Amino acid sequence: MKQSLKKIVIFGVGLIGGSFALALKSAGLSSLIVGVGRNNDNLRSAINLGVIDEVQNDIEKAIHEADLIFIATPVAQTPLILNAIAPHLSSKTIVTDAGSTKSDIQNYVITASDYARDKKSFLSNFIGGHPIAGSEKSGVNAANPDLFKGKNVILTPNSDTSDETLRVVKSLWEATGAAVTEMSAQKHDQIFAAVSHLPHILSFALVANIASRSNSSELFDFAASGFRDFTRIAGSSPEMWRDICLANGKALYQELESYKSSLEELSRLISNKDGSGLEALFSNASIARNQWNEKKKTTQDD
Amino acid sequence: MKQSLKKIVIFGVGLIGGSFALALKSAGLSSLIVGVGRNNDNLRSAINLGVIDEVQNDIEKAIHEADLIFIATPVAQTPLILNAIAPHLSSKTIVTDAGSTKSDIQNYVITASDYARDKKSFLSNFIGGHPIAGSEKSGVNAANPDLFKGKNVILTPNSDTSDETLRVVKSLWEATGAAVTEMSAQKHDQIFAAVSHLPHILSFALVANIASRSNSSELFDFAASGFRDFTRIAGSSPEMWRDICLANGKALYQELESYKSSLEELSRLISNKDGSGLEALFSNASIARNQWNEKKKTTQDD
Repeated sequence: MKQSLKKIVIFGVGLIGGSFALALKSAGLSSLIVGVGRNNDNLRSAINLGVIDEVQNDIEKAIHEADLIFIATPVAQTPLILNAIAPHLSSKTIVTDAGSTKSDIQNYVITASDYARDKKSFLSNFIGGHPIAGSEKSGVNAANPDLFKGKNVILTPNSDTSDETLRVVKSLWEATGAAVTEMSAQKHDQIFAAVSHLPHILSFALVANIASRSNSSELFDFAASGFRDFTRIAGSSPEMWRDICLANGKALYQELESYKSSLEELSRLISNKDGSGLEALFSNASIARNQWNEKKKTTQDD
Repeated sequence: MKQSLKKIVIFGVGLIGGSFALALKSAGLSSLIVGVGRNNDNLRSAINLGVIDEVQNDIEKAIHEADLIFIATPVAQTPLILNAIAPHLSSKTIVTDAGSTKSDIQNYVITASDYARDKKSFLSNFIGGHPIAGSEKSGVNAANPDLFKGKNVILTPNSDTSDETLRVVKSLWEATGAAVTEMSAQKHDQIFAAVSHLPHILSFALVANIASRSNSSELFDFAASGFRDFTRIAGSSPEMWRDICLANGKALYQELESYKSSLEELSRLISNKDGSGLEALFSNASIARNQWNEKKKTTQDD
């Protein structure tokens, strides 16, 4: 059964917020979508593109009688938004987000619940979310109703989250074409520390290391396609990745320690000229990488 | 002035050897190209595709009256080939290679020169080379006359290399459309340890680390496009990268130590929750990566 909502409020009408709006409109699941944001040009574009129906930067008015609030701003904005909406929320408004880290958001919700008129509803109406989708582009002009089709979306209910909150948010994501998985916020953060946050900081670290050298321009001159692939994610937003590192510092630190042990092992194999040890390590990686790639090809293309 | 040669012998008629042959044929620079290799099916395809004119696995016959020998086999084969050709080489045959590491090859040449009829000519007729070009495909079926167009080729003359050897090999590479740079073998190996060999082993290490865990299948399930780019090079040939690590172990070990220091710094920034330190590091990387990418776009597309 599809969930149709009368009023949806989106904080941060960029690539993710805008694509969510377009996907719900295209599925016929929303009568009114209200956008809230800091960038007026962007919000005007969102109206012109038909992504949202209305702009309202008075938070109390914006969220009045809203069925759902979707927070898709940079993560550092989320606690401020939660604190700002808490005093004005009705006991029926569901709140969710799209941040790349989830334990920190859960803590912000608990802090913000002190400002809520109805603390219990506030907590039971919140569920964290993380759509595993993106694009090299950003902003509402890149928004696209098919962005989430075939992609994973993770929802992180906690013990306070009501079944109804989970059901509604899940059905909306499914209407966008995404595959929804539920797990705890902590588990989410551990998984993404390993497969997303760690590779990003490793890539940043390599480029920063090379850029800091006196012969960096010569080194860059001879960098080719392997370097290009490995460092593509080092072109990502420094602010966004700063926030992710701060928000998921504990799990990321553990991943970094584990990875440093792997590099110790590599140093040992290289200095011992251990050809069979090196080949075994590279084979494990190569087989796993190629199997992963084959599997991804047949399931989704994110 | 273009250099036309009567007889060229290619050891290892795969992607690189085959593309070199096709590029020279297309430039009208060779009358006869002879292929030598271990895989008869591959050599038969090379004949059928018109990449080579003849197969000859008797080494003495193959290199008889050759103007140039091009060794494009996996690097581990190179010393065996050098030792095998040395006793039969005329004093006029130029020898070059296409290996990803260069100091090791130089040492093999010195060892093989003991088997040469004319040690002095053998040494002065050799020059190491490294075309910075490749493809996810391998084998002669992927060979393509334009593979080297706009790409970098590095030649590593040493104090024994004659000017004539450098001139001939340089002119052939230029005829393929490549941009030729000369540098010492040692400098080559230091540069490629930083911008190629290190990223490859870092990527292998990440995938091997994740693959070794009890929850690896769950981790891989949620790996997305950032992971895909970062780990593309972890799908590379384990044998080839084992050989590169062994051949360039010294420079690579130093790079690994330097990178481990970068990771120590990252660990410190994360555990100190140093947001401005993290942002500064990520900004340096992001700016350098995006500048590099812009520059590469306008110069070459490897």
